[in-house]
Amino acid sequence: MPAQKTAPSPALSARGRGMPASPIRKLAPSAERALARGMRIFKLNIGQPDVATAAPFIAAYRGFEPDVIGYAPSDGFKSYREAIVRYYGSFDVEIGTDDLVVTTGGSEALMMAFAACCDPGDDVLLFEPCYPNYIGFATWLGVKTSFVTTTREQGYHLPDRATIEARIGPRTRAMVVCNPGNPTGTVHTRDEIEMLADIARSRGIFLISDEVYRELVFGDAEAVPVLSLPGMDQHAIQVDSTSKRYSACGARIGWVTTRNADLRAAMLKMGQARLSAPTVGQLGGEAAIGLPDDYRRSVVAEYKGRRDVLVKRLEAMPGVELAAPDGAFYIMVELPVDDTNEFCAWLLEEHDHGGDTVMLAPGEGFYGTPGLGTNEARIAYVLDSEDLDHAMDVLESGLAHYPGRKETS
Amino acid sequence: MPAQKTAPSPALSARGRGMPASPIRKLAPSAERALARGMRIFKLNIGQPDVATAAPFIAAYRGFEPDVIGYAPSDGFKSYREAIVRYYGSFDVEIGTDDLVVTTGGSEALMMAFAACCDPGDDVLLFEPCYPNYIGFATWLGVKTSFVTTTREQGYHLPDRATIEARIGPRTRAMVVCNPGNPTGTVHTRDEIEMLADIARSRGIFLISDEVYRELVFGDAEAVPVLSLPGMDQHAIQVDSTSKRYSACGARIGWVTTRNADLRAAMLKMGQARLSAPTVGQLGGEAAIGLPDDYRRSVVAEYKGRRDVLVKRLEAMPGVELAAPDGAFYIMVELPVDDTNEFCAWLLEEHDHGGDTVMLAPGEGFYGTPGLGTNEARIAYVLDSEDLDHAMDVLESGLAHYPGRKETS
Repeated sequence: MPAQKTAPSPALSARGRGMPASPIRKLAPSAERALARGMRIFKLNIGQPDVATAAPFIAAYRGFEPDVIGYAPSDGFKSYREAIVRYYGSFDVEIGTDDLVVTTGGSEALMMAFAACCDPGDDVLLFEPCYPNYIGFATWLGVKTSFVTTTREQGYHLPDRATIEARIGPRTRAMVVCNPGNPTGTVHTRDEIEMLADIARSRGIFLISDEVYRELVFGDAEAVPVLSLPGMDQHAIQVDSTSKRYSACGARIGWVTTRNADLRAAMLKMGQARLSAPTVGQLGGEAAIGLPDDYRRSVVAEYKGRRDVLVKRLEAMPGVELAAPDGAFYIMVELPVDDTNEFCAWLLEEHDHGGDTVMLAPGEGFYGTPGLGTNEARIAYVLDSEDLDHAMDVLESGLAHYPGRKETS
Repeated sequence: MPAQKTAPSPALSARGRGMPASPIRKLAPSAERALARGMRIFKLNIGQPDVATAAPFIAAYRGFEPDVIGYAPSDGFKSYREAIVRYYGSFDVEIGTDDLVVTTGGSEALMMAFAACCDPGDDVLLFEPCYPNYIGFATWLGVKTSFVTTTREQGYHLPDRATIEARIGPRTRAMVVCNPGNPTGTVHTRDEIEMLADIARSRGIFLISDEVYRELVFGDAEAVPVLSLPGMDQHAIQVDSTSKRYSACGARIGWVTTRNADLRAAMLKMGQARLSAPTVGQLGGEAAIGLPDDYRRSVVAEYKGRRDVLVKRLEAMPGVELAAPDGAFYIMVELPVDDTNEFCAWLLEEHDHGGDTVMLAPGEGFYGTPGLGTNEARIAYVLDSEDLDHAMDVLESGLAHYPGRKETS
């Protein structure tokens, strides 16, 4: 073999280097060590509900009859899209089967929406604390992010219009709102959503509304569907998912809807590139979508009971501050510690409450602005009320014993 | 409501506008009209095998016992990754469970690999005719494409090294080879793959090898796994899928493997952003991966029989030219017509062979260089030999009756 000049090893891309670590999953190694020590971990870090998957959904897997698990159409099975159209009609949102693309979870819906709105170097405006994977998808696509901060004191509701508009730059192509919110559980008011719609129209940008927790609202709160607002056909993109509604996270079935035909055509071509969303999961989604309303009511009642337990326990802990959420199954809490990254790791590495400990998601990764969220953590109430109550005992004793605890007045 | 200046409707992104239409699926409207007229269509346009899904794969769906279809780990179930490691060991490729990420089909594996290698504006070098969705994924990610042309006369094997190196520019970050090839069925020789590896090393770029048709090789041909080559740990990325091997296209399960730890870490973070690949599909893949070799042999024998039928029939048609393929289940054919876009549409719109017609994928979309492929079409042999033989009758009569037929010597 002739001697040959060898170039250095190739470098990965800047976006590959810049991909954020998931704040929800980054403590997994500490958790593994805790399990190896024989600890029992109450996992409140991840939005994986313990609630049983809706029965018709799972029955579609067990009853799958064809000999071949073949591709589905790139925009999803027609019968499923028809069922989704009827489901939207049940809350007075009129769409057609050609307004949506069935996707591999809400995740892929966001990957399509961001790319259809934004070229590399454009940016999306996020409301922090936000679902951290918005930042991940943007980075994956070479899209920048900018942030409007919401606060616990304001219940994580939106600031005034001027504050939001001040963050819209010349390359801002879309705002992304999660309603009900992850990680906050905040249900935005109709006034807030109408304000965002009006900003989108007046500034000529898109409004992406992530409504995967739509049905999970408590009391009188109402999560206004972006597609119900007039004058938004060209601007509104709605992201949806079966994961939380039917406790079917592993099915990876969602969809993205817009009445903007050009935008939908672009997302369909992305859909054709990746061929299809999972076939059997779509059958599950179609089987579950017609569930009577008592299914939804029973799920909402279960989560509301859990929220009530958590809020009562957390409000009784000295130095703990929170805004009681109206929806989804998350609470952002401020803890009396300097750095929740360290505290959450300490819970797994050092804390031992009779063999038990608890896993939370440190708050920093839910913010884009450096320095924010360092005293916050997200709690997902994905265990039953009894376990949650016990997990709060574990957390309370952790706060009492943590060497880095701050003095509270 | 106060009068308000309204900006124009937002424009979608340039990449959204630039997404290519799928050559495999773009004739679907013509096909729907043919079906509406009562025609029977022999669909040879799409790589959706009629072969039954491997029995253990489908049994994992029917036998799914847990109450919850929950998320899988972002890199895939450990037990599945261990099974993949053993499977690679069976053909002497040594990898570890932390060298791979289980993905939503080979499609997502490519979305991760392209993004980890390339920033927006960088380019990937493709060998045309190529799998058209490489161009789709690149466009989705803001990555450019450049092309090295292979020809039917050379059996779609690679040209010499100088021709390839001449197409590598300052922003070329990766070459993508599909082996065995889609749409050509060409199995590249060891010399060819070693040449690409040597180019990758000497030029400091990545080599992405799409090996989803690995087992589907006929006769003495051997598809050399890129991960079996020495000195390529930093450069080689391998894309794999269960779709074709087990006829499980709709399961959407694949994986991406590299021994480059930084690259794998970046792809895992993308995996964390999108949470997980489908859960039950992974159980299917794990159940099927240990199938004894007689499963593979029976599938290969079936496809080889089909290839033999097709090659014999096509070679007997005046003016039809092809290179008999050694693998996968595709043939690129040159047809004696001016424009296969028009001819393939005509087959669906006008041709009627006793109530039957045939659907092919026009060749142009498999090329990046304008003007190439206009007299070619891709035939996927995804029907049994008897149906294929009849479909060739339909094609032959179509060529005989097509008004735009070219004179052949």
